[in-house]
Amino acid sequence: MMIIIFGSTGDLTKRKLIPALFSLYQRKIIGADFPIVCVGRKRLSKNDFIDHLELKKFIPEYDPKDDSRFIDMIYYYTVDLDCADCTGFKKQIGSLEKKHKTSDKIFYLALPSTLFKKVVDLIKSCGLTVGKGYSRVVFEKPIGHDLRSAVELNDHVSCVFPEKSIYRIDHYLGKELVQNIMALRFSNAIFNEVWNNKFIDHVQITNSETVGIEDRGDYYEKTGAIKDMFQNHLLQILSFIVMCPPKSISADDIRDEKIKVLRSLDPVRAEDIVVGQYDSGFVKGRNVLPYRSESEVDPKSKTETYAAMKLFVNNGRWKGVPFYLRTGKRLAMRYTEVNVVLKDVSCNMFCKSGVKEDHTPNIMTIRIQPDEGIALTFNAKHPGSKLILHPVVMDFCHACHFGFNVPQAYEVLLHQIIIGDQTLFTRRDEIEESWRYIDPIVKMVGKKKRSFPNYEPGSFGPKEADKLIGRDGREWILPKELRTEHGHNI
Amino acid sequence: MMIIIFGSTGDLTKRKLIPALFSLYQRKIIGADFPIVCVGRKRLSKNDFIDHLELKKFIPEYDPKDDSRFIDMIYYYTVDLDCADCTGFKKQIGSLEKKHKTSDKIFYLALPSTLFKKVVDLIKSCGLTVGKGYSRVVFEKPIGHDLRSAVELNDHVSCVFPEKSIYRIDHYLGKELVQNIMALRFSNAIFNEVWNNKFIDHVQITNSETVGIEDRGDYYEKTGAIKDMFQNHLLQILSFIVMCPPKSISADDIRDEKIKVLRSLDPVRAEDIVVGQYDSGFVKGRNVLPYRSESEVDPKSKTETYAAMKLFVNNGRWKGVPFYLRTGKRLAMRYTEVNVVLKDVSCNMFCKSGVKEDHTPNIMTIRIQPDEGIALTFNAKHPGSKLILHPVVMDFCHACHFGFNVPQAYEVLLHQIIIGDQTLFTRRDEIEESWRYIDPIVKMVGKKKRSFPNYEPGSFGPKEADKLIGRDGREWILPKELRTEHGHNI
Repeated sequence: MMIIIFGSTGDLTKRKLIPALFSLYQRKIIGADFPIVCVGRKRLSKNDFIDHLELKKFIPEYDPKDDSRFIDMIYYYTVDLDCADCTGFKKQIGSLEKKHKTSDKIFYLALPSTLFKKVVDLIKSCGLTVGKGYSRVVFEKPIGHDLRSAVELNDHVSCVFPEKSIYRIDHYLGKELVQNIMALRFSNAIFNEVWNNKFIDHVQITNSETVGIEDRGDYYEKTGAIKDMFQNHLLQILSFIVMCPPKSISADDIRDEKIKVLRSLDPVRAEDIVVGQYDSGFVKGRNVLPYRSESEVDPKSKTETYAAMKLFVNNGRWKGVPFYLRTGKRLAMRYTEVNVVLKDVSCNMFCKSGVKEDHTPNIMTIRIQPDEGIALTFNAKHPGSKLILHPVVMDFCHACHFGFNVPQAYEVLLHQIIIGDQTLFTRRDEIEESWRYIDPIVKMVGKKKRSFPNYEPGSFGPKEADKLIGRDGREWILPKELRTEHGHNI
Repeated sequence: MMIIIFGSTGDLTKRKLIPALFSLYQRKIIGADFPIVCVGRKRLSKNDFIDHLELKKFIPEYDPKDDSRFIDMIYYYTVDLDCADCTGFKKQIGSLEKKHKTSDKIFYLALPSTLFKKVVDLIKSCGLTVGKGYSRVVFEKPIGHDLRSAVELNDHVSCVFPEKSIYRIDHYLGKELVQNIMALRFSNAIFNEVWNNKFIDHVQITNSETVGIEDRGDYYEKTGAIKDMFQNHLLQILSFIVMCPPKSISADDIRDEKIKVLRSLDPVRAEDIVVGQYDSGFVKGRNVLPYRSESEVDPKSKTETYAAMKLFVNNGRWKGVPFYLRTGKRLAMRYTEVNVVLKDVSCNMFCKSGVKEDHTPNIMTIRIQPDEGIALTFNAKHPGSKLILHPVVMDFCHACHFGFNVPQAYEVLLHQIIIGDQTLFTRRDEIEESWRYIDPIVKMVGKKKRSFPNYEPGSFGPKEADKLIGRDGREWILPKELRTEHGHNI
C-alpha cells in the first residue's frame, strides 16, 4: 500500500499527516513497504522537503538516526496541477509500485477544496486508478460550500471513485470522546434508559476556541462559523447524541442512523439563531485585533465568527427537547463538550418539606477536548444532621485511566483508511443532507441585521446567546474549571 | 437540656459519646448550660472520672486549658442500680436543673441490654420523668435477642416513655453514606429511574471487618453475626436501598416505608444461608487465635462469626431481584459497601458484530466506610481504531469534596436526639419486625450442620459463600482497591 499526498507542502501534512504516519509506523501498523509519496507544486529536493517537514518540531520523539527508515519511505515529486506531466508522474508511481511490491493506493487531497476536481481529474487522466490493487481517496473539508456545490463535487468524484472508496474527513470523528458516545449510550443500561424526551430536559453542545482565524482570512471570509463548524463538526456530534441504536456497528448501519437524524431536524427559526463577530480586546496580556482588521478580511465584514442556535429533532424520541449548539473563536476557553441535562426531579419530597434548596438536575457531561472525560453531576446529601441536598460531580478522566498516549484524531483516521473502515467518515448523503439543512440557515443569517462586532475577545460570546437560552429559563453550563464549588451553575 | 449517661465508665462513653459531645460543644450546638451527667456504679471522684475518660487520647484536638469549660459541664455520680439511693440521686439532678435552668433530660443507656429494664425502673421510681421539661431515652443495641424479648423490653419501656421519646440507636444510620442513599435515589432522575427489577440484576451488601470479636467473647457467644449485624445494620441498609419513596422526609413517613420493606421480605431458604467461624491464622505479620480460643468462648462453640444470605423482596418493584448480604469478622479488609448491579445490556450491537468482549454491567457502588463515596462502573470505548468496549469507573469521593471533617455517626445521632428528630432511630415496629424476620433464620442456622471453623483469617470468608452467589452465575464484587486494572471483576 502507498499513500500519495497532494498538497504536501501545506500545513496539514507537516502538522498532522506526517506525525500520524510516523506514529502508525512506530506502532508497526505501516512498515517499510508503505511509501509516503508527497506531491507538490514547488520544486524541492527530497532533502529540502524533509527539512520543510520540521520533523523535530512536530514529532517530539523523532530521532534522525533511529528513524532513518521512516525517512527512506518518504518521496517528494513535483507536480504542476495545471500542466501535469502524466507520463512522468505515472512512471514514478509505477516504479514505486514495483519497488515496494504494492499497487494499493490512498490518494490524500490535503489541499483547498477548489482544487479537488483538478486532482481527481489528474488521477483519472493519468490512469492511476487502473490496474490491480485498490484506490481510496481522502478529502478534507469543506466538501462544497452549499448543497449545490457539494452535489456537483460528489457527482464529479463519483465518476472516478465509487462511494465505498471515498473517505471524507471530519477530524472530530477521530476524537476518542466523540467515538465514545455510541459506546456510552448503547452499552450502559443507566444511560441508555434515560436517553429520550421523557428524561432529558435539553442538550448543550459547545465548541469554544480561544484562537482567532489565524492566517486563514481569505478562507474564513467566504465561510464563517456556521459553514466552518456547524455544518460538519457540530452536526456530527449532534448525530451521535441523537441517533437511534444502529442494527450493528458496521459503517453503513451507523451512517444510516446518523442520516436519519439530519433528516429529522426541524428548520431553525430566525429568532433561534444568534451570530457574533469578535471585537478587539485584551486577552492573556496582549492586545488582539478585531476580526475586521485581520489580514485578508473586509473592514466591514459581516462574516460571523460565532454562532449559537436552538434546534429541535422531530421524532418520537426527541420531540420537545431543545438542543442548544454554539461555536466561536476568541472565546474565554478552548473546550468542546456536550452536556445532556436531565429533567430535574431533585425537588421531589425534599422541597415539599421545606428543606433549603441547593440542588441540580442530573447532567451528563462528555468532554471531547482538551480534558477528555465523562462526568455526571448529581445530588448527594450535604454532611450534617439534616437531609439537605448538595450537587456533586462524579468524574471519569480519560487520560487518568488510559494515559495520555491515546492516538490523535488523524492517526485514528489514517488507520481507518488503511484498514478500509468508513465508519468515521462522512457519507455522500450525510454531507448533502447537512448542507440541505444549513443552506436556509446561512440564507437567514444573511438577511439578519448584524451589528458587528458584538463580543469581546476572551468572553463567552455575545450577550444575545445568553438570552437565547435564558428566555427558556436555562443557562449555558460552565466548563468544569469555572463551575462554582457547588459543582454546578444551574 | 441535660444528658444523663448510665454506664458512663464503659468504653462507649469515652470512645464515642464524650468525643461526640465535645464536637457538638465546639460547634456551639451545646453550650455551658448543657450538663453531662455521667452515672456509674464505681466510686470515683470527678478528677478520677475525667482521667478515666482519656480525653487526650480520644479527642485529638482537646486542650485542657482552652477547653476547661467543657470539663466544667461534666458531672460524675455514683449510682448502684441494685440499691439506688433515689432521694440522693433525684436531689443531685434537681440541683443541676436549678443551676443550669433546665428540666429537659436525655437519658442515655450506655450499658448492656440486660440492665435496660433496671435503669428504666430507676428513672421511673426516682420520678425523673415527672415535672416540666421533656424526657428522651436512648438505647444502644441490642434491643432484645429475639422477637419475644424485644416485645417484652419495648412493652416495659413504653410504660415510662411514649414512643416519640424513645431513641433506639443503630449507629449505621448515623453514617453519612447510609443517610445519602435516600438523597441519591430520590433526587436524581438517573438513579431513580433504574431502581427496580426492570433494570437491576441483583444487589450486594457487604460488611467486612478485619477485627475479631475483641474482648466481647461473653456477649458474642450468645449473639453471633446474624444477631449482631444482620438484624440491625444490614437490614437497615437494605431498607434504605429497597424502600419506596416516602411521602415526605419526616421521621415517620420514612420509617413507615422502611417497615414495609421488612414486611415484604420472603422467608430465607436454608440453602440460601451460609455461616462461618474463623480459624487461627497469620494476619498482617502476626498470628491470630481461632474464634474458639478467644477469651470467654466455648472451645466447641458453634457461634457464627460470618454469615451470608440471599434474600428476596416480595413486591412489584423488586420481585425476582436477589439481594446477597454478608458480614464477617477477621476478613481480608475493613469495608462496608452496597453494590447495585444493573442488568447487562452492554452486549447489544457490540457483541453481534464479533467485537472482542470486555464489558461490564453498570454497577452503582455506595461505599459506606471507610473510603466514603459513590461510584459508577460503566463501559467506555477503548482508545484506538476499533469500537471495543472497556469497563471504567466514575467516582465521587466524599472526603475529596466535603473534606474529612464530616461529623461522625455518634455526633450526628446525638445532634438528632437534641433536636428531637427520630429519623435516624429505629422505631418499635421496625425492631420487632426485624426480629420476626431474623428469628426463623437463627433457628434454621441452629439446625444446620456446621463444620466450624471454616474460614481463614484474612480471607474473604468461607468458600460456601462464593458458591452461594456463584451458583446463580454471579460473583461477589471486589472492593475498589482490589479490582483489576479493568475496573471490575465481573
